[in-house]
Amino acid sequence: MALIELSSSHLKCYHLLPLTRTPMITHVGFSRKIEAFTRRLPCLETTIIKRKPSVFDSYLRKRINCLPDTSYEFAAMLHYSLSYWRLKAGFSYHHAEPGYVMLTYWIANEPCMLPSTATHQVGVGGFVINENREVLVVKEKCPLRCSCIWKLPTGLLDKSEDIFCGAIREVKEETGIDTCFLEVVAFRHAHQVIFEKSDLLFICMLKPLSFDISIDALEIQAATWMPLDEFLDQPFHREDRMSKNILDICIARHENLYRGFTANRMMSKLDERLSYLYCGDI
Amino acid sequence: MALIELSSSHLKCYHLLPLTRTPMITHVGFSRKIEAFTRRLPCLETTIIKRKPSVFDSYLRKRINCLPDTSYEFAAMLHYSLSYWRLKAGFSYHHAEPGYVMLTYWIANEPCMLPSTATHQVGVGGFVINENREVLVVKEKCPLRCSCIWKLPTGLLDKSEDIFCGAIREVKEETGIDTCFLEVVAFRHAHQVIFEKSDLLFICMLKPLSFDISIDALEIQAATWMPLDEFLDQPFHREDRMSKNILDICIARHENLYRGFTANRMMSKLDERLSYLYCGDI
Repeated sequence: MALIELSSSHLKCYHLLPLTRTPMITHVGFSRKIEAFTRRLPCLETTIIKRKPSVFDSYLRKRINCLPDTSYEFAAMLHYSLSYWRLKAGFSYHHAEPGYVMLTYWIANEPCMLPSTATHQVGVGGFVINENREVLVVKEKCPLRCSCIWKLPTGLLDKSEDIFCGAIREVKEETGIDTCFLEVVAFRHAHQVIFEKSDLLFICMLKPLSFDISIDALEIQAATWMPLDEFLDQPFHREDRMSKNILDICIARHENLYRGFTANRMMSKLDERLSYLYCGDI
Repeated sequence: MALIELSSSHLKCYHLLPLTRTPMITHVGFSRKIEAFTRRLPCLETTIIKRKPSVFDSYLRKRINCLPDTSYEFAAMLHYSLSYWRLKAGFSYHHAEPGYVMLTYWIANEPCMLPSTATHQVGVGGFVINENREVLVVKEKCPLRCSCIWKLPTGLLDKSEDIFCGAIREVKEETGIDTCFLEVVAFRHAHQVIFEKSDLLFICMLKPLSFDISIDALEIQAATWMPLDEFLDQPFHREDRMSKNILDICIARHENLYRGFTANRMMSKLDERLSYLYCGDI
């Protein structure tokens, strides 16, 4: 199934929800222009349900009538529509995900103000050190240059996952060790990483709550508690300025000579969301 | 023009580069399986150019032969191929951007290990305070609840833009004030914001280098240097816990009672990239 969105003078989006037998079309915002525009699109006969105004705008829901009988026919019709909207009506791709594609068209005669799609992947790395001054380290299975290096457990955040939760989860998945979150001690910002997107890697100080290692054999070759000095003495960590700085910071934090950012959950009136503010003590 | 990528046992991607008259197909990684698979796809007759191994893998380049004469024919052929790959060959959407769509197919008989598309938008807010204890504030033009509030200049990062550069640029665009970057003093992490993506907002302490305001009339209603106490005394800032915390941090930083993270440019041997590590002093 797919998803189509279009936009007019502010933020007007239609989308086909992929999970319903009868695909739904929603659009955010109001516009007379968009109503006229919709009539030009093929295969969209619509009814409207009004919803409570949200942060960005009010939502209108529209239902596609005249659905074909088979999924193959629907797919063919949808492809025809996608093709029509893109080639004839001037739509262009905005973003896509598995089972979903969004096309947009800026109706107003002014620069497009629609925010671009997501630009960043976010990763987390966990520094876990025990009372014997041993660091929890892994060797990854991927056939890259990092495969022979003992390194901190790292991984990408899941969709809508908080940084501190992601760090705890990755450490648990890769090594079996339970931890609690202390601080974000540093983060790295790099560009043109995977799929030309930017990348943020948050280094998290975690406190171990268990000690018996059990590795994720799919991603990890090996995991161990390694004496800190032995870990730092690997040629790679001595020679790589980024790694050296990150580890110096982690050690300083462990020795209470450094403070990073803690995670503080709070409400924002601006968007009526509970979210986390990461900051130092004031 | 469009872009198609497919993946096999590790990270195997093909894409059509949109800027060349003769679209190129690249794929990352090695696989016998992928070679066999490619032969099943329509309209792909290929030649291979081998490149130096990169961080992720080696690249192989393949060129499409048998291109049609007109862009309309090419678009039709491409749509046929997209449709074929998606419906018959089991491809699904991975991500898209204006003028670009990527389809992927995991060949190996194991869970798909391809990283998902970008999950985050990244915004920046600038706290700029002058020697008269006046804060640089704006009223936005958007018809939301924030439109009547004097607030810090904020905006989204451009593609591949660094956080400190984005903060300086947004302040300059919205208010005309030149600044230099001091520190990231805090960041907020929220989920399901725009297009169901997560959002990171980095609060940056900036030092003003000029004083004459000139607003961006497209986005901004008004901008002014406002006495700090008057700014804090707005009911919204008094009542909103997130805003209050952020402003308390900024004031503490201004009074040298707080330290955030500075931006430190350095090379990482792991990916041979110059990037920024944001961290405190150690």
